[in-house]
Amino acid sequence: MLSKSLGKYIQSLQQKKFRQEHGAFLVEGSINVLELCASDYQIELVLTTESFYKENAQLLDKQRVRLEMVSPDDLKRVGSLVVNETGLAVVKTKENRFLVAESDEFVLVLDDIRDPGNLGTILRIADWYGIRKLICSPSTADVYNPKVISASKGSFTRVEWFYTPLASYLADLAGAAVYGAFLDGTNVHTHRFGPSGYIVMGNEANGISEDVERFVSQRITIPRFGGAESLNVGIATAVICDNLRRSAGGK
Amino acid sequence: MLSKSLGKYIQSLQQKKFRQEHGAFLVEGSINVLELCASDYQIELVLTTESFYKENAQLLDKQRVRLEMVSPDDLKRVGSLVVNETGLAVVKTKENRFLVAESDEFVLVLDDIRDPGNLGTILRIADWYGIRKLICSPSTADVYNPKVISASKGSFTRVEWFYTPLASYLADLAGAAVYGAFLDGTNVHTHRFGPSGYIVMGNEANGISEDVERFVSQRITIPRFGGAESLNVGIATAVICDNLRRSAGGK
Repeated sequence: MLSKSLGKYIQSLQQKKFRQEHGAFLVEGSINVLELCASDYQIELVLTTESFYKENAQLLDKQRVRLEMVSPDDLKRVGSLVVNETGLAVVKTKENRFLVAESDEFVLVLDDIRDPGNLGTILRIADWYGIRKLICSPSTADVYNPKVISASKGSFTRVEWFYTPLASYLADLAGAAVYGAFLDGTNVHTHRFGPSGYIVMGNEANGISEDVERFVSQRITIPRFGGAESLNVGIATAVICDNLRRSAGGK
Repeated sequence: MLSKSLGKYIQSLQQKKFRQEHGAFLVEGSINVLELCASDYQIELVLTTESFYKENAQLLDKQRVRLEMVSPDDLKRVGSLVVNETGLAVVKTKENRFLVAESDEFVLVLDDIRDPGNLGTILRIADWYGIRKLICSPSTADVYNPKVISASKGSFTRVEWFYTPLASYLADLAGAAVYGAFLDGTNVHTHRFGPSGYIVMGNEANGISEDVERFVSQRITIPRFGGAESLNVGIATAVICDNLRRSAGGK
């Protein structure tokens, strides 16, 4: 049985204000909860349906956290998913810790990515392509938004992020390669990527801001073969990462 | 002023049943309506706000169709978008016409793509990469769904589709190259694509069905460099199309 006060607390974590106040966020659904259990995140409590508990008793018990048996209806009521027949965890957020690219590493820089679905997709793409760090402008969607976590399909456990004003962050990077996608850049199919650097992805409607564009040292372009005016930012991120991994090395 | 009966008719077109009954569908928002006006689709009527009409009077008048001035609130009420301050068109659907790949052409084959957002994104990607034909299983989302049209950002005007049972369609293609993405295929970074063929994309949860897999002649794989278990079907479509265009020719 889910108490009223616990239900209210969980519901409140759908809002950024309360996530910040409590230093906690929601992880929902089977893949996300299972990947969470294998990560270094600190879990506060887990709500689980009976069937999900039965299938994963060993893993869930190993977490040594408060477990509450609930119904799918409970999960739907307090969580953000339209359907959830498995589980939900309340998890401690991590400190906003400074991150920088190592000399053999690529990181993504997100300049005002507003849509939580896009941000979740970008986490999943970063994880697929072995990119482990995101640098996010303060105006980028909150990564702890339940929609971001859900869309990441567990990839939030393998990628780190650092929210910081991008212009001053980039100004401090002496001599690093900073890649940005523009219409007049060199073709990603033939561009020679170095061993490391920063890949800037811009806002859904406006692209990379002028403030950030100043720091782009290598302008790249995804070649177009048909009539569409643009690609979605998640799609563009994937195509750039794929070309980068094909042509460069890095980790 | 929007009459009650016209409002009801437009609202009804959000449902497949009524789209089929009336042979009509909705096109909403600025980009989509403007691209529509430049296409060969037969428009029944256009609802437009005053400001959208003023900006595009010449183009809209040229259509020689019934034009109704409405408010953004009217558009919101009868259409599917949360915000629409521009226009909405009611458009005749096209006949479900047989399509086949020419000898220098790639086409996409969609095996049970259920999510309208994914289908709309795939239309946009196809258009970007100059792929002009989709072959869709009957269980694939309805391309005339307003969510598909909206997500396509005008690309629905440059791509054609043919809904047909895939197994019998593919059985009739003698000797064509049929590409499908699997975990055990050859790496798309090094695979040599021929000049033409069919690229099969599978269901969001289950991938390519067994019935269709039998006809795949070239198994390909998007290489993974990190921990994510899979890529979204739209992302995978884009990465495959990008590699195909880089390594092959075709149109």
